[in-house]
Amino acid sequence: MGRVIAEILTIGDEILRGEIVDSNKAYLSERLLEAEIECHYQLSVRDDPPAMADALRCAAERADVVLVSGGLGPTRDDRTTAVVAETFGRELVLDEASLALIRAFFARVGRPMSENNAKQALFPSGAEVLPNPEGTAPGFQLEVPGASVFCLPGVPRELRRMMDEQVLPRLGCGGAGGAKGPSLVRARLLRTFGIGESSLDSELEGLELPPGVTLGFRTQFPDNLVRVVARAETAAVAEERCGAVVSDLRKRLGPLLYGEGEAPLAAEVVAELREQKRTLAVAESCTGGLLAERVTAVAGASAVFLGGVSAYADSAKTRLLGVPEALLATHGAVSEEVARAMAEGIRGRLGADFALATTGISGPGGGSASKPVGLVYLALASAEETHCDSFVFALDRSRHRSLTAQVGLDWVRRKLLGFELVGPSLMRRDGEEPTGTSDSHGRSHERR
Amino acid sequence: MGRVIAEILTIGDEILRGEIVDSNKAYLSERLLEAEIECHYQLSVRDDPPAMADALRCAAERADVVLVSGGLGPTRDDRTTAVVAETFGRELVLDEASLALIRAFFARVGRPMSENNAKQALFPSGAEVLPNPEGTAPGFQLEVPGASVFCLPGVPRELRRMMDEQVLPRLGCGGAGGAKGPSLVRARLLRTFGIGESSLDSELEGLELPPGVTLGFRTQFPDNLVRVVARAETAAVAEERCGAVVSDLRKRLGPLLYGEGEAPLAAEVVAELREQKRTLAVAESCTGGLLAERVTAVAGASAVFLGGVSAYADSAKTRLLGVPEALLATHGAVSEEVARAMAEGIRGRLGADFALATTGISGPGGGSASKPVGLVYLALASAEETHCDSFVFALDRSRHRSLTAQVGLDWVRRKLLGFELVGPSLMRRDGEEPTGTSDSHGRSHERR
Repeated sequence: MGRVIAEILTIGDEILRGEIVDSNKAYLSERLLEAEIECHYQLSVRDDPPAMADALRCAAERADVVLVSGGLGPTRDDRTTAVVAETFGRELVLDEASLALIRAFFARVGRPMSENNAKQALFPSGAEVLPNPEGTAPGFQLEVPGASVFCLPGVPRELRRMMDEQVLPRLGCGGAGGAKGPSLVRARLLRTFGIGESSLDSELEGLELPPGVTLGFRTQFPDNLVRVVARAETAAVAEERCGAVVSDLRKRLGPLLYGEGEAPLAAEVVAELREQKRTLAVAESCTGGLLAERVTAVAGASAVFLGGVSAYADSAKTRLLGVPEALLATHGAVSEEVARAMAEGIRGRLGADFALATTGISGPGGGSASKPVGLVYLALASAEETHCDSFVFALDRSRHRSLTAQVGLDWVRRKLLGFELVGPSLMRRDGEEPTGTSDSHGRSHERR
Repeated sequence: MGRVIAEILTIGDEILRGEIVDSNKAYLSERLLEAEIECHYQLSVRDDPPAMADALRCAAERADVVLVSGGLGPTRDDRTTAVVAETFGRELVLDEASLALIRAFFARVGRPMSENNAKQALFPSGAEVLPNPEGTAPGFQLEVPGASVFCLPGVPRELRRMMDEQVLPRLGCGGAGGAKGPSLVRARLLRTFGIGESSLDSELEGLELPPGVTLGFRTQFPDNLVRVVARAETAAVAEERCGAVVSDLRKRLGPLLYGEGEAPLAAEVVAELREQKRTLAVAESCTGGLLAERVTAVAGASAVFLGGVSAYADSAKTRLLGVPEALLATHGAVSEEVARAMAEGIRGRLGADFALATTGISGPGGGSASKPVGLVYLALASAEETHCDSFVFALDRSRHRSLTAQVGLDWVRRKLLGFELVGPSLMRRDGEEPTGTSDSHGRSHERR
């Protein structure tokens, strides 16, 4: 049996003008791959009928499945349906059921339906309509010589749901949960923090990979991710080989590996705090609220997160955290003494089990000879002790804040799990930049 | 003179597997457009030599400028240089100067240079080397029949600098500042908050556009952006028509328009606070630190932002903000009384001119019949008064927090500029969803 090949075609002037980063292509590709379907081309073209027609013909020739996104709306720029019909020699026919749904949508929101909305109920003859519970423009599937063409809306929320609920099941894959039934590929994504990409690669030197298993590395600042992909004749063998490699990696990476899948480090920290019934508070100077924001972005954080202070001005440090003015005057706001006092201050005030504090110089201004831009102190206070360490992260303001917050979260995780509290500065001994700032930032490479 | 047409080709298995959202295409397209060059196709292919060769041939046929990104690194997956050379019938030749620079790079970071790095000093004969000050892989320009081909690294930081400093000047456009010299297109981006996309469209009903001027609408949740693009025979005319339309829009939109260009609302708020020498503090329950984070993400925020409290637990509200326990017991944490007490509490403690407070139910859990998920109270305290209002934003947790924070920032801006304090609920009278949640979320449409 030959492999099924897909091509993705996204349509819209705004993409070609660079006004939006089109994330639909990545979503569709990833979902296809989980369903054993490889995407060989991703193409974007303008709202220009001849270019759209060429692209559709070319895609239908070289792929078995063509996913088209965008251009299904009510405006004159939305030409996908008409161009698909013309390219593959179909008439446009009105689907009464779809028209009724569009009318009902407008009645529900109490707005008059302008007539151009009726256009969204026209489909190429022979097409199967794909309902769109998230918006007004339905999608459709059309069988053409050599390929199944699926036309989906461009709005990411609508597209994702239609892909999961309508397209994947029609490709023989069970709905929202991803590929069901027998399968030849298994993939798992491991998340690491605190190790640079090339150190990660060295760390795995000599790892024996079973046949058909590959490792992919990717930086998602400040984390580094490892994807294990196993292909085999049967799903069971792929599953087993994938699992064996994941076990090996877990052993080798130890505390550097913090989780699996899509959940960020903050979600792991919240889950572990819940598990251990412990609470957290934060006192932030240079991260300015980012730590609190990351923790509270996790649904259910209220069970473990008591609160925090964004202590930007010195007065906030003294009044909200009780940092002595003398300490600030003697050591300066960016100092080990102040970091400790901040962590202990918020911990005492809120009665938290753990309290994190950050104080540093994220830049671009504010540095001096003795305290350069990039310097940061972190402190983690608990009932037994307050651990404090400093780092110099030579990064821009946004990444400095992001890396600092992540080190803090990683300390809480390590504390909860009984690991040593280390920072990414460990990675700098060989001159390598800290985690996630290596040359490969933003792209991935592979080991086979 | 005919228009110059470009095509962008990005290369990498990780793109086609959907592991990364490839933002390089949007960046390159946008920079090209500023230089008068329209991009007609964006194509991504795997690290697969036959597919790469086909795509290169096709691009060189239909475009005048071909920008290739990715596949220039040292590993065996990096095949771009070899495939370009073969496709266009060139030998690979070693560039000694590039090799010396690569050796120097490794010497500087104190690491041995593995021999595969030397591969990055090979170029197709006749190519001009483009230096890469951000990494080890240089790019190159190759003139082939009908097109100029530019090969750039895939790492966004490296690609952007090479595009601005090396590619654009070679296309006759002045370096990093964008297109210089005579030009036929002028574009400006206006940022609005507090109005839904279709209301924005209606608001502009009857606006007279000079010839060659188009408006583009785009939602960047929770903001709605309007791009004015003017094309004319001369740069001066384009400039003047663009400016005239921007003036018209400013008049019509009034306080809904908060800024121009890339700076987010928080940056405008910080700038205006600095201008007026006023200070800000925040007390956040449901936004959990997001307000403080947005404000402190702006470089220079320390001049106006005193600090904030992420008061997640009730104990944090009483201990850090002085909210009376009786108030919490009587009205509940999500109430007008508590919102007011939070704002006034942080304002008094830090002595700020303005203080914002948020308390609400971002979900997914925590709602009740009288206080549904989505309910939120905002309060803005100043020396004269404390303004408070409530909204129900029927959005997911992340967008609920984001919209709430933006309403708060918008209130500070409106207060500073003497505008009425309104919220996006104004937009809901006709049944439309609040700003940025319309059907067009994530894509744009046009008016001509």
